[in-house]
Amino acid sequence: MNFADRLLEAIDKKRNPSVIGLDSDFTKLPNSLKQDFRERFGSNFEAVGKCILEFNRRIMDSIKDVVPAVKIQMAFYEQYGHQGMKAFEDTVTYAKQRGLIVIEDAKRNDIGNTARAYSAGHLGRVDLFGDSVRSIDVDCITVNPYLGSDGIVPFLEDVKGNEKGVFILVKTSNPSSSELQDLTSGDRKIYEIMADYVNKWGSSMVGEKGYSSVGAVVGATYPKEVKILRKIMPRSIFLVPGYGAQGGGARDVLPSFNPDGFGALIHSARGVIFAYEKTGDENEFNSLAREAALRMKDDITLALKESKIGNW
Amino acid sequence: MNFADRLLEAIDKKRNPSVIGLDSDFTKLPNSLKQDFRERFGSNFEAVGKCILEFNRRIMDSIKDVVPAVKIQMAFYEQYGHQGMKAFEDTVTYAKQRGLIVIEDAKRNDIGNTARAYSAGHLGRVDLFGDSVRSIDVDCITVNPYLGSDGIVPFLEDVKGNEKGVFILVKTSNPSSSELQDLTSGDRKIYEIMADYVNKWGSSMVGEKGYSSVGAVVGATYPKEVKILRKIMPRSIFLVPGYGAQGGGARDVLPSFNPDGFGALIHSARGVIFAYEKTGDENEFNSLAREAALRMKDDITLALKESKIGNW
Repeated sequence: MNFADRLLEAIDKKRNPSVIGLDSDFTKLPNSLKQDFRERFGSNFEAVGKCILEFNRRIMDSIKDVVPAVKIQMAFYEQYGHQGMKAFEDTVTYAKQRGLIVIEDAKRNDIGNTARAYSAGHLGRVDLFGDSVRSIDVDCITVNPYLGSDGIVPFLEDVKGNEKGVFILVKTSNPSSSELQDLTSGDRKIYEIMADYVNKWGSSMVGEKGYSSVGAVVGATYPKEVKILRKIMPRSIFLVPGYGAQGGGARDVLPSFNPDGFGALIHSARGVIFAYEKTGDENEFNSLAREAALRMKDDITLALKESKIGNW
Repeated sequence: MNFADRLLEAIDKKRNPSVIGLDSDFTKLPNSLKQDFRERFGSNFEAVGKCILEFNRRIMDSIKDVVPAVKIQMAFYEQYGHQGMKAFEDTVTYAKQRGLIVIEDAKRNDIGNTARAYSAGHLGRVDLFGDSVRSIDVDCITVNPYLGSDGIVPFLEDVKGNEKGVFILVKTSNPSSSELQDLTSGDRKIYEIMADYVNKWGSSMVGEKGYSSVGAVVGATYPKEVKILRKIMPRSIFLVPGYGAQGGGARDVLPSFNPDGFGALIHSARGVIFAYEKTGDENEFNSLAREAALRMKDDITLALKESKIGNW
């Protein structure tokens, strides 16, 4: 099934248009968990990787019936080299076994055969002595469009051929996103021009539910811009960072949705997976994450209901 | 020593302003080498990683007295997951032991604590149960500026604190780089505006030889644009792809240099490391790579001499 259809089905089934980020920063993991892994495996990157994986497993076990998907932030794994990468891969496997859709937040970008190598590794198939086999095999990856079509098309081929998805950076949630993305060229902003490309790139990958497997990253922190972008990319699913820790509330994310109540996937990471930091009870980190995930779900779906957006 | 000073010293010592790319695409490695590793380790990603590492070692042994640096293209490693990542790390270690400066071409980008995690892993130090230790530890990494300062500043902190370098994408060598990078805002192109930022970001990191550790990626395929960019970023070292396989010749790369004969590092990958594909003698891949690297060196330094740029 087309990625967009799968994602929408999962959103509908869980009655939840939000995604939890496994931004599993090792420095922020519960101390007791860290100590346990240090004792068992020593003070090395292998122990770090295994500890991150265990943290992720417990978080996923506690939210797997709440959210349709997890977004795994590659930076927090890759920084520990191949041991971190192993933890990333094992997290992907575990998530899929629990029926969670996996969005890899890696913001990859390159051109030609190099972009093809990235896409093959993350979404498609790689060569193994003449055989063509799956490698990291996430459902979806974020990509950066600075290099233009040459950097995007190789990913689109795997989106099409392997029923995968991409979310392309358009208007990011951070303050300095304005430096490049808000520049005006002709009578349009750069983010509008990029949105045109995303709409075009995704037009041939629209599923049965009316959405494309080529989505866009559009920050919740700029509701006015989101409105404009929703019009330019009516069939793209928006991956929306900025809710929670970055300052956006449920009202701010509403413009990301289409009138049918779909088309947006609201993201929160720290506010959920590190919810324990606020209460201080680190042994309850997983149940506190579950509570935070449920609060987020209720917060967003209530705002959608009140605004009569879709059938929530 | 400041990264820019180290790089210039190495360029001067080897009398060679070029860098060889270890774009070690497994499908293009010599068949006899691949068969050997398949027999020894089986048909799995571990064998692929070990085979790529061995290929890289032999290439590096044959060019280590010719070039000042190697550029390792992450995509060809990462696509094999943690086994590929292990090959990448071992390649970095081997390169440094042979006195080669290591440029990681990974085009990373993110914001805030996520960008810090990338920077910590590749350039700085990561947390290991309370200790702060080196992880991937390359000399330099390429980064993508689509997210603005928020995505760059965390890397700059490690450039400063750890004597590392970054090359920021400004004007890339591929045909579709025009789609975003050549748009006009006000009376300036996007690549000029990004060049202003690069110049500003690098201004406080200029070494004793007059160059900044904050460099720019500027493709050789657009000599007219390179001229303009050379003026906007007089103290930035340009990492210049597009020579060789991508169609640029020695004449095309000359505008990347300052009148002092420095300020550019010309890159070639496929044309050198896979030089054996043209002759067909795959058992000689390393000596053929050496010959190709020497030809490239001679080609560029002769063009510099003839144009009386610097003291070559």
